[in-house]
Amino acid sequence: MNRATPPPPPGAVPPGTAQGDGLKIATRTLPVGTDGNGHMIDLSADASRLLKSVGMSEGQVTLFVPGSTAAVTTIEFEQGLKQDLPAAMERVAPVDETYRHNEAWHDGNGHSHVRASLMGPSLVVPFTGGRLMLGTWQQIVLCDWDNRPRNREVILQFIGK
Amino acid sequence: MNRATPPPPPGAVPPGTAQGDGLKIATRTLPVGTDGNGHMIDLSADASRLLKSVGMSEGQVTLFVPGSTAAVTTIEFEQGLKQDLPAAMERVAPVDETYRHNEAWHDGNGHSHVRASLMGPSLVVPFTGGRLMLGTWQQIVLCDWDNRPRNREVILQFIGK
Amino acid sequence: MNRATPPPPPGAVPPGTAQGDGLKIATRTLPVGTDGNGHMIDLSADASRLLKSVGMSEGQVTLFVPGSTAAVTTIEFEQGLKQDLPAAMERVAPVDETYRHNEAWHDGNGHSHVRASLMGPSLVVPFTGGRLMLGTWQQIVLCDWDNRPRNREVILQFIGK
Repeated sequence: MNRATPPPPPGAVPPGTAQGDGLKIATRTLPVGTDGNGHMIDLSADASRLLKSVGMSEGQVTLFVPGSTAAVTTIEFEQGLKQDLPAAMERVAPVDETYRHNEAWHDGNGHSHVRASLMGPSLVVPFTGGRLMLGTWQQIVLCDWDNRPRNREVILQFIGK
Repeated sequence: MNRATPPPPPGAVPPGTAQGDGLKIATRTLPVGTDGNGHMIDLSADASRLLKSVGMSEGQVTLFVPGSTAAVTTIEFEQGLKQDLPAAMERVAPVDETYRHNEAWHDGNGHSHVRASLMGPSLVVPFTGGRLMLGTWQQIVLCDWDNRPRNREVILQFIGK
Repeated sequence: MNRATPPPPPGAVPPGTAQGDGLKIATRTLPVGTDGNGHMIDLSADASRLLKSVGMSEGQVTLFVPGSTAAVTTIEFEQGLKQDLPAAMERVAPVDETYRHNEAWHDGNGHSHVRASLMGPSLVVPFTGGRLMLGTWQQIVLCDWDNRPRNREVILQFIGK
Protein backbone atom coordinates (compact mmCIF):
# COMPACT_ATOMS: atom_id res chain seq x y z
CA MET A 1 0.00 0.00 0.00
CA ASN A 2 1.22 3.49 -0.79
CA ARG A 3 1.26 5.04 2.67
CA ALA A 4 2.86 8.36 1.74
CA THR A 5 1.47 11.74 0.85
CA PRO A 6 0.97 11.71 -2.94
CA PRO A 7 3.61 13.71 -4.85
CA PRO A 8 2.64 17.16 -6.17
CA PRO A 9 1.82 17.52 -9.89
CA PRO A 10 4.85 18.24 -12.13
CA GLY A 11 6.02 21.81 -11.89
CA ALA A 12 4.10 22.53 -8.71
CA VAL A 13 5.82 23.89 -5.64
CA PRO A 14 5.52 21.14 -2.98
CA PRO A 15 3.33 22.42 -0.15
CA GLY A 16 5.32 22.97 2.99
CA THR A 17 8.67 23.52 1.28
CA ALA A 18 10.45 26.80 1.84
CA GLN A 19 11.95 28.30 -1.32
CA GLY A 20 15.23 29.34 0.25
CA ASP A 21 13.56 32.23 2.03
CA GLY A 22 15.34 31.50 5.27
CA LEU A 23 14.12 30.39 8.64
CA LYS A 24 13.78 32.34 11.87
CA ILE A 25 14.36 31.39 15.48
CA ALA A 26 12.70 32.74 18.63
CA THR A 27 13.42 31.66 22.20
CA ARG A 28 10.94 32.25 24.99
CA THR A 29 10.90 31.45 28.71
CA LEU A 30 7.73 30.40 30.51
CA PRO A 31 7.73 30.59 34.32
CA VAL A 32 5.69 27.75 35.81
CA GLY A 33 5.00 27.17 39.50
CA THR A 34 4.47 23.52 40.42
CA ASP A 35 3.50 21.51 43.50
CA GLY A 36 6.13 18.85 42.73
CA ASN A 37 5.39 15.18 43.55
CA GLY A 38 4.30 14.33 40.04
CA HIS A 39 2.31 17.51 39.45
CA MET A 40 1.42 17.81 35.76
CA ILE A 41 0.81 21.19 34.18
CA ASP A 42 -0.78 21.67 30.77
CA LEU A 43 1.42 23.96 28.67
CA SER A 44 -0.56 23.68 25.43
CA ALA A 45 -2.38 27.00 25.63
CA ASP A 46 0.83 28.84 26.53
CA ALA A 47 2.66 27.17 23.64
CA SER A 48 -0.10 28.16 21.20
CA ARG A 49 -0.18 31.72 22.49
CA LEU A 50 3.61 32.10 22.20
CA LEU A 51 3.52 30.58 18.70
CA LYS A 52 1.05 33.27 17.71
CA SER A 53 3.26 35.96 19.25
CA VAL A 54 6.37 34.91 17.29
CA GLY A 55 4.37 35.04 14.06
CA MET A 56 5.53 31.82 12.39
CA SER A 57 3.28 29.58 10.30
CA GLU A 58 5.40 26.46 9.60
CA GLY A 59 8.06 25.01 11.86
CA GLN A 60 8.54 23.39 15.22
CA VAL A 61 8.69 24.29 18.88
CA THR A 62 11.19 22.60 21.17
CA LEU A 63 10.15 22.51 24.83
CA PHE A 64 12.98 22.01 27.30
CA VAL A 65 12.92 22.09 31.08
CA PRO A 66 16.18 23.07 32.82
CA GLY A 67 16.71 21.03 35.98
CA SER A 68 17.14 17.32 36.63
CA THR A 69 13.86 16.45 38.40
CA ALA A 70 11.24 17.42 35.80
CA ALA A 71 10.29 16.22 32.33
CA VAL A 72 8.20 17.26 29.32
CA THR A 73 5.90 14.97 27.35
CA THR A 74 2.36 14.82 25.96
CA ILE A 75 -0.70 13.22 27.55
CA GLU A 76 -4.47 13.34 27.47
CA PHE A 77 -4.77 15.88 30.24
CA GLU A 78 -7.63 14.57 32.37
CA GLN A 79 -8.05 13.78 36.05
CA GLY A 80 -7.57 10.01 35.78
CA LEU A 81 -4.23 10.01 34.01
CA LYS A 82 -2.88 12.61 36.45
CA GLN A 83 -2.94 9.74 38.95
CA ASP A 84 -2.21 6.85 36.59
CA LEU A 85 1.10 8.16 35.25
CA PRO A 86 2.61 8.73 38.72
CA ALA A 87 1.29 5.29 39.75
CA ALA A 88 3.23 3.70 36.87
CA MET A 89 6.34 5.64 37.83
CA GLU A 90 5.98 4.29 41.35
CA ARG A 91 6.52 0.81 39.86
CA VAL A 92 9.71 1.93 38.09
CA ALA A 93 11.22 4.20 40.72
CA PRO A 94 9.31 3.85 44.02
CA VAL A 95 9.49 6.77 46.46
CA ASP A 96 10.44 4.53 49.39
CA GLU A 97 13.12 2.53 47.58
CA THR A 98 16.75 2.89 48.69
CA TYR A 99 18.63 5.38 46.51
CA ARG A 100 22.38 5.97 46.61
CA HIS A 101 21.58 9.55 45.68
CA ASN A 102 19.66 10.02 48.93
CA GLU A 103 22.38 8.38 51.01
CA ALA A 104 24.86 10.92 49.66
CA TRP A 105 22.75 14.08 49.47
CA HIS A 106 19.94 13.48 52.00
CA ASP A 107 17.38 15.38 49.93
CA GLY A 108 15.08 12.40 49.54
CA ASN A 109 14.46 12.93 45.83
CA GLY A 110 16.39 10.06 44.28
CA HIS A 111 13.17 8.80 42.71
CA SER A 112 12.55 12.26 41.23
CA HIS A 113 15.87 12.24 39.39
CA VAL A 114 15.37 8.74 38.04
CA ARG A 115 11.85 9.47 36.80
CA ALA A 116 12.91 12.71 35.12
CA SER A 117 15.87 11.08 33.35
CA LEU A 118 13.68 8.25 32.07
CA MET A 119 11.08 10.59 30.58
CA GLY A 120 13.53 13.19 29.31
CA PRO A 121 13.56 16.99 29.43
CA SER A 122 12.88 17.77 25.76
CA LEU A 123 9.96 17.48 23.35
CA VAL A 124 9.57 18.73 19.77
CA VAL A 125 6.14 19.59 18.34
CA PRO A 126 5.72 20.63 14.68
CA PHE A 127 3.27 23.29 13.54
CA THR A 128 1.73 24.25 10.19
CA GLY A 129 -0.76 26.99 9.36
CA GLY A 130 0.21 28.62 12.66
CA ARG A 131 -1.20 25.69 14.66
CA LEU A 132 0.53 23.01 16.72
CA MET A 133 -0.01 19.57 15.16
CA LEU A 134 -1.27 17.98 18.38
CA GLY A 135 -4.04 15.43 18.47
CA THR A 136 -7.43 16.51 19.76
CA TRP A 137 -6.92 14.78 23.11
CA GLN A 138 -3.17 15.38 23.32
CA GLN A 139 -1.75 18.10 25.53
CA ILE A 140 1.82 19.22 26.20
CA VAL A 141 2.66 18.73 29.87
CA LEU A 142 5.41 19.52 32.31
CA CYS A 143 5.75 16.68 34.87
CA ASP A 144 7.44 17.85 38.02
CA TRP A 145 8.80 14.77 39.79
CA ASP A 146 10.63 16.65 42.55
CA ASN A 147 9.52 16.06 46.13
CA ARG A 148 8.62 19.68 46.84
CA PRO A 149 7.04 22.70 45.08
CA ARG A 150 9.31 24.25 42.48
CA ASN A 151 9.43 27.34 40.31
CA ARG A 152 10.41 26.23 36.82
CA GLU A 153 11.42 28.19 33.74
CA VAL A 154 10.38 26.12 30.73
CA ILE A 155 12.13 27.05 27.47
CA LEU A 156 10.09 27.21 24.27
CA GLN A 157 12.26 27.63 21.21
CA PHE A 158 10.53 28.15 17.86
CA ILE A 159 12.24 27.48 14.53
CA GLY A 160 10.33 28.10 11.32
CA LYS A 161 9.09 30.69 8.92
CA MET B 1 42.05 11.59 25.27
CA ASN B 2 40.85 14.05 22.66
CA ARG B 3 37.44 12.69 21.89
CA ALA B 4 36.28 15.44 19.55
CA THR B 5 36.43 15.92 15.82
CA PRO B 6 39.75 17.71 15.14
CA PRO B 7 39.39 21.40 14.29
CA PRO B 8 39.73 22.44 10.64
CA PRO B 9 43.03 24.00 9.50
CA PRO B 10 43.20 27.81 9.81
CA GLY B 11 41.23 29.55 7.11
CA ALA B 12 39.32 26.45 6.11
CA VAL B 13 35.54 26.39 6.03
CA PRO B 14 34.48 23.90 8.71
CA PRO B 15 32.79 20.96 7.04
CA GLY B 16 29.10 20.84 7.78
CA THR B 17 28.76 24.57 8.42
CA ALA B 18 26.40 26.53 6.24
CA GLN B 19 27.75 29.90 5.15
CA GLY B 20 24.59 31.87 5.75
CA ASP B 21 22.93 30.27 2.75
CA GLY B 22 19.72 29.69 4.66
CA LEU B 23 17.91 26.59 5.71
CA LYS B 24 14.71 25.13 4.34
CA ILE B 25 11.80 23.39 6.00
CA ALA B 26 9.45 20.75 4.59
CA THR B 27 6.55 19.11 6.43
CA ARG B 28 5.12 15.79 5.30
CA THR B 29 2.33 13.56 6.60
CA LEU B 30 2.59 9.76 6.49
CA PRO B 31 -0.64 7.78 6.93
CA VAL B 32 0.03 4.56 8.87
CA GLY B 33 -2.53 1.87 9.67
CA THR B 34 -1.78 -0.06 12.87
CA ASP B 35 -3.18 -3.05 14.74
CA GLY B 36 -2.78 -1.28 18.11
CA ASN B 37 -1.84 -3.33 21.19
CA GLY B 38 1.87 -2.57 20.95
CA HIS B 39 2.09 -2.93 17.18
CA MET B 40 5.43 -1.58 15.96
CA ILE B 41 5.81 -0.26 12.43
CA ASP B 42 9.17 0.43 10.79
CA LEU B 43 9.13 3.95 9.33
CA SER B 44 12.78 4.03 8.23
CA ALA B 45 12.23 3.40 4.52
CA ASP B 46 9.45 5.97 4.38
CA ALA B 47 11.64 8.52 6.18
CA SER B 48 14.51 7.91 3.74
CA ARG B 49 12.22 8.15 0.74
CA LEU B 50 10.67 11.41 1.95
CA LEU B 51 14.15 12.80 2.70
CA LYS B 52 15.11 12.12 -0.91
CA SER B 53 11.91 13.80 -2.13
CA VAL B 54 12.56 17.03 -0.19
CA GLY B 55 16.08 17.20 -1.65
CA MET B 56 18.08 18.12 1.44
CA SER B 57 21.56 16.82 2.17
CA GLU B 58 22.33 18.04 5.72
CA GLY B 59 19.81 18.53 8.49
CA GLN B 60 17.37 16.66 10.68
CA VAL B 61 13.97 15.06 10.53
CA THR B 62 11.56 15.36 13.44
CA LEU B 63 9.03 12.56 13.68
CA PHE B 64 5.92 13.35 15.70
CA VAL B 65 2.78 11.30 16.20
CA PRO B 66 -0.41 13.23 16.96
CA GLY B 67 -2.55 11.40 19.53
CA SER B 68 -1.99 10.35 23.11
CA THR B 69 -1.71 6.54 22.79
CA ALA B 70 1.24 6.12 20.42
CA ALA B 71 4.96 6.90 20.54
CA VAL B 72 8.00 7.14 18.26
CA THR B 73 11.45 5.73 19.05
CA THR B 74 14.19 3.60 17.46
CA ILE B 75 14.76 -0.13 17.89
CA GLU B 76 16.45 -3.06 16.16
CA PHE B 77 13.37 -4.07 14.21
CA GLU B 78 13.32 -7.86 14.53
CA GLN B 79 10.73 -10.39 15.65
CA GLY B 80 12.08 -10.92 19.17
CA LEU B 81 12.08 -7.30 20.29
CA LYS B 82 8.57 -6.79 18.92
CA GLN B 83 7.52 -8.98 21.85
CA ASP B 84 10.19 -7.94 24.37
CA LEU B 85 9.37 -4.23 24.37
CA PRO B 86 5.64 -4.72 25.06
CA ALA B 87 6.58 -7.28 27.74
CA ALA B 88 8.68 -4.64 29.51
CA MET B 89 5.84 -2.13 29.22
CA GLU B 90 3.56 -4.70 30.85
CA ARG B 91 5.79 -4.42 33.95
CA VAL B 92 5.46 -0.62 33.99
CA ALA B 93 1.83 -0.21 33.02
CA PRO B 94 0.04 -3.59 33.05
CA VAL B 95 -3.06 -3.95 30.90
CA ASP B 96 -5.14 -5.38 33.77
CA GLU B 97 -4.11 -2.83 36.40
CA THR B 98 -6.73 -0.44 37.77
CA TYR B 99 -6.62 2.92 36.00
CA ARG B 100 -8.54 6.02 37.03
CA HIS B 101 -8.68 6.87 33.35
CA ASN B 102 -10.70 3.72 32.65
CA GLU B 103 -13.03 4.33 35.59
CA ALA B 104 -13.88 7.75 34.14
CA TRP B 105 -13.91 7.04 30.41
CA HIS B 106 -14.57 3.27 30.17
CA ASP B 107 -12.42 2.88 27.06
CA GLY B 108 -10.05 0.41 28.70
CA ASN B 109 -6.90 2.05 27.37
CA GLY B 110 -5.43 3.64 30.51
CA HIS B 111 -2.28 1.55 30.05
CA SER B 112 -2.00 2.82 26.45
CA HIS B 113 -1.92 6.45 27.55
CA VAL B 114 0.65 5.81 30.28
CA ARG B 115 2.96 3.87 27.95
CA ALA B 116 2.75 6.51 25.23
CA SER B 117 3.50 9.37 27.63
CA LEU B 118 6.50 7.52 29.05
CA MET B 119 8.06 6.91 25.64
CA GLY B 120 7.14 10.26 24.14
CA PRO B 121 5.65 11.27 20.78
CA SER B 122 8.73 12.91 19.20
CA LEU B 123 12.10 11.80 17.85
CA VAL B 124 14.79 13.76 16.01
CA VAL B 125 17.18 12.03 13.58
CA PRO B 126 20.02 13.96 11.88
CA PHE B 127 21.11 13.36 8.29
CA THR B 128 24.22 14.19 6.25
CA GLY B 129 25.03 13.39 2.63
CA GLY B 130 21.29 12.86 2.12
CA ARG B 131 21.28 9.83 4.46
CA LEU B 132 19.76 9.38 7.91
CA MET B 133 22.51 8.83 10.50
CA LEU B 134 20.94 5.67 11.92
CA GLY B 135 22.99 2.69 13.06
CA THR B 136 23.01 -0.40 10.87
CA TRP B 137 20.61 -2.27 13.18
CA GLN B 138 18.59 0.78 14.23
CA GLN B 139 15.18 1.48 12.73
CA ILE B 140 12.68 4.27 13.35
CA VAL B 141 9.45 2.83 14.72
CA LEU B 142 5.96 3.94 15.55
CA CYS B 143 4.68 2.05 18.63
CA ASP B 144 0.92 2.03 18.79
CA TRP B 145 -0.06 1.30 22.39
CA ASP B 146 -3.81 1.80 21.92
CA ASN B 147 -6.08 -1.18 22.55
CA ARG B 148 -7.56 -1.27 19.04
CA PRO B 149 -6.46 -0.74 15.41
CA ARG B 150 -5.82 2.90 14.56
CA ASN B 151 -5.18 5.02 11.50
CA ARG B 152 -2.32 7.38 12.36
CA GLU B 153 -0.92 10.37 10.55
CA VAL B 154 2.75 10.58 11.47
CA ILE B 155 4.37 13.97 10.86
CA LEU B 156 7.86 14.11 9.36
CA GLN B 157 9.31 17.60 9.41
CA PHE B 158 12.65 18.17 7.67
CA ILE B 159 14.90 21.13 8.46
CA GLY B 160 18.16 21.50 6.60
CA LYS B 161 19.81 22.52 3.37
CA MET C 1 -1.48 34.46 36.95
CA ASN C 2 0.29 35.68 33.85
CA ARG C 3 2.92 33.03 33.46
CA ALA C 4 4.38 34.17 30.13
CA THR C 5 7.26 36.44 29.22
CA PRO C 6 5.77 39.94 28.93
CA PRO C 7 5.32 41.15 25.36
CA PRO C 8 7.85 43.68 24.01
CA PRO C 9 6.84 47.36 23.86
CA PRO C 10 5.15 48.43 20.61
CA GLY C 11 7.59 48.79 17.75
CA ALA C 12 10.36 46.92 19.53
CA VAL C 13 12.08 43.95 17.95
CA PRO C 14 11.19 40.96 20.13
CA PRO C 15 14.34 39.65 21.78
CA GLY C 16 15.40 36.30 20.40
CA THR C 17 13.71 36.75 17.04
CA ALA C 18 15.88 36.59 13.95
CA GLN C 19 15.03 39.24 11.35
CA GLY C 20 15.21 36.93 8.34
CA ASP C 21 18.99 36.77 8.60
CA GLY C 22 18.98 33.03 8.07
CA LEU C 23 20.03 30.13 10.23
CA LYS C 24 23.09 27.92 9.95
CA ILE C 25 23.60 24.22 10.56
CA ALA C 26 26.70 22.38 11.71
CA THR C 27 27.02 18.63 12.28
CA ARG C 28 29.77 17.17 14.46
CA THR C 29 30.70 13.64 15.52
CA LEU C 30 31.98 12.85 18.99
CA PRO C 31 33.74 9.49 19.50
CA VAL C 32 32.99 8.09 22.96
CA GLY C 33 34.36 4.87 24.42
CA THR C 34 32.07 3.22 26.97
CA ASP C 35 32.19 0.26 29.36
CA GLY C 36 28.59 -0.72 28.46
CA ASN C 37 26.34 -2.21 31.19
CA GLY C 38 24.66 1.09 32.03
CA HIS C 39 27.82 3.19 31.84
CA MET C 40 26.90 6.88 31.82
CA ILE C 41 29.19 9.46 30.26
CA ASP C 42 28.85 13.19 30.78
CA LEU C 43 28.85 14.92 27.38
CA SER C 44 28.11 18.45 28.66
CA ALA C 45 31.65 19.82 28.41
CA ASP C 46 32.10 18.41 24.90
CA ALA C 47 28.75 19.86 23.84
CA SER C 48 29.72 23.30 25.20
CA ARG C 49 33.13 23.17 23.54
CA LEU C 50 31.66 22.19 20.16
CA LEU C 51 29.02 24.92 20.50
CA LYS C 52 31.82 27.44 20.94
CA SER C 53 33.65 26.03 17.90
CA VAL C 54 30.63 26.40 15.60
CA GLY C 55 30.24 30.01 16.65
CA MET C 56 26.49 30.21 17.16
CA SER C 57 24.80 32.23 19.89
CA GLU C 58 21.11 31.27 19.71
CA GLY C 59 19.74 27.91 18.65
CA GLN C 60 19.64 24.28 19.66
CA VAL C 61 21.83 21.22 19.63
CA THR C 62 20.35 17.82 18.84
CA LEU C 63 22.25 14.89 20.32
CA PHE C 64 21.66 11.56 18.63
CA VAL C 65 23.35 8.21 19.24
CA PRO C 66 23.42 5.79 16.31
CA GLY C 67 22.88 2.20 17.46
CA SER C 68 20.01 0.44 19.20
CA THR C 69 21.49 -0.23 22.67
CA ALA C 70 22.32 3.28 23.90
CA ALA C 71 20.33 6.40 24.78
CA VAL C 72 20.80 10.10 25.47
CA THR C 73 19.16 12.05 28.30
CA THR C 74 20.02 14.48 31.09
CA ILE C 75 20.73 13.69 34.74
CA GLU C 76 22.44 15.14 37.78
CA PHE C 77 25.76 13.47 37.09
CA GLU C 78 26.85 12.21 40.52
CA GLN C 79 27.95 8.83 41.87
CA GLY C 80 24.63 7.86 43.47
CA LEU C 81 22.42 8.28 40.42
CA LYS C 82 24.92 6.36 38.28
CA GLN C 83 23.71 3.33 40.28
CA ASP C 84 20.09 4.40 40.85
CA LEU C 85 19.13 4.78 37.19
CA PRO C 86 20.38 1.29 36.18
CA ALA C 87 18.64 -0.10 39.29
CA ALA C 88 15.33 1.34 38.09
CA MET C 89 15.92 -0.07 34.60
CA GLU C 90 16.47 -3.47 36.22
CA ARG C 91 12.83 -3.27 37.39
CA VAL C 92 11.60 -2.51 33.86
CA ALA C 93 13.86 -4.77 31.81
CA PRO C 94 15.79 -7.13 34.11
CA VAL C 95 19.06 -8.56 32.79
CA ASP C 96 18.08 -12.14 33.67
CA GLU C 97 14.56 -12.03 32.23
CA THR C 98 13.73 -14.20 29.20
CA TYR C 99 13.96 -12.22 25.97
CA ARG C 100 12.85 -13.47 22.55
CA HIS C 101 15.67 -11.36 21.14
CA ASN C 102 18.24 -13.47 23.01
CA GLU C 103 16.61 -16.72 21.96
CA ALA C 104 16.99 -15.69 18.32
CA TRP C 105 20.34 -13.92 18.36
CA HIS C 106 22.15 -15.35 21.40
CA ASP C 107 23.92 -12.06 22.16
CA GLY C 108 22.40 -11.73 25.61
CA ASN C 109 21.54 -8.07 25.25
CA GLY C 110 17.75 -8.15 24.94
CA HIS C 111 17.50 -5.96 28.05
CA SER C 112 19.90 -3.45 26.46
CA HIS C 113 17.67 -2.97 23.43
CA VAL C 114 14.53 -2.57 25.50
CA ARG C 115 16.12 -0.02 27.84
CA ALA C 116 17.55 2.01 24.94
CA SER C 117 14.23 2.11 23.09
CA LEU C 118 12.39 3.22 26.22
CA MET C 119 14.76 6.13 26.88
CA GLY C 120 15.21 7.12 23.25
CA PRO C 121 18.29 8.05 21.19
CA SER C 122 17.67 11.78 20.76
CA LEU C 123 17.72 14.88 22.95
CA VAL C 124 17.39 18.57 22.03
CA VAL C 125 18.96 21.29 24.18
CA PRO C 126 18.44 24.99 23.38
CA PHE C 127 21.16 27.63 23.79
CA THR C 128 21.19 31.41 24.02
CA GLY C 129 24.10 33.79 24.49
CA GLY C 130 26.36 30.96 23.35
CA ARG C 131 25.48 28.84 26.39
CA LEU C 132 23.46 25.66 26.73
CA MET C 133 20.31 26.30 28.78
CA LEU C 134 20.94 23.42 31.18
CA GLY C 135 20.14 23.63 34.87
CA THR C 136 23.03 23.94 37.32
CA TRP C 137 22.82 20.29 38.33
CA GLN C 138 21.75 18.96 34.95
CA GLN C 139 24.23 17.24 32.66
CA ILE C 140 23.84 15.68 29.22
CA VAL C 141 24.63 11.97 29.37
CA LEU C 142 25.08 9.04 27.05
CA CYS C 143 23.75 5.86 28.70
CA ASP C 144 25.25 2.75 27.18
CA TRP C 145 22.96 -0.16 27.99
CA ASP C 146 24.79 -2.75 25.89
CA ASN C 147 26.32 -5.73 27.71
CA ARG C 148 29.90 -5.03 26.62
CA PRO C 149 32.24 -2.07 26.03
CA ARG C 150 31.40 -0.10 22.89
CA ASN C 151 32.91 2.64 20.79
CA ARG C 152 30.12 5.11 20.02
CA GLU C 153 29.97 8.05 17.64
CA VAL C 154 27.52 10.54 19.12
CA ILE C 155 26.13 13.08 16.66
CA LEU C 156 25.79 16.72 17.76
CA GLN C 157 23.90 18.81 15.25
CA PHE C 158 23.68 22.55 15.87
CA ILE C 159 21.00 24.74 14.28
CA GLY C 160 20.97 28.46 15.01
CA LYS C 161 22.58 31.78 14.27
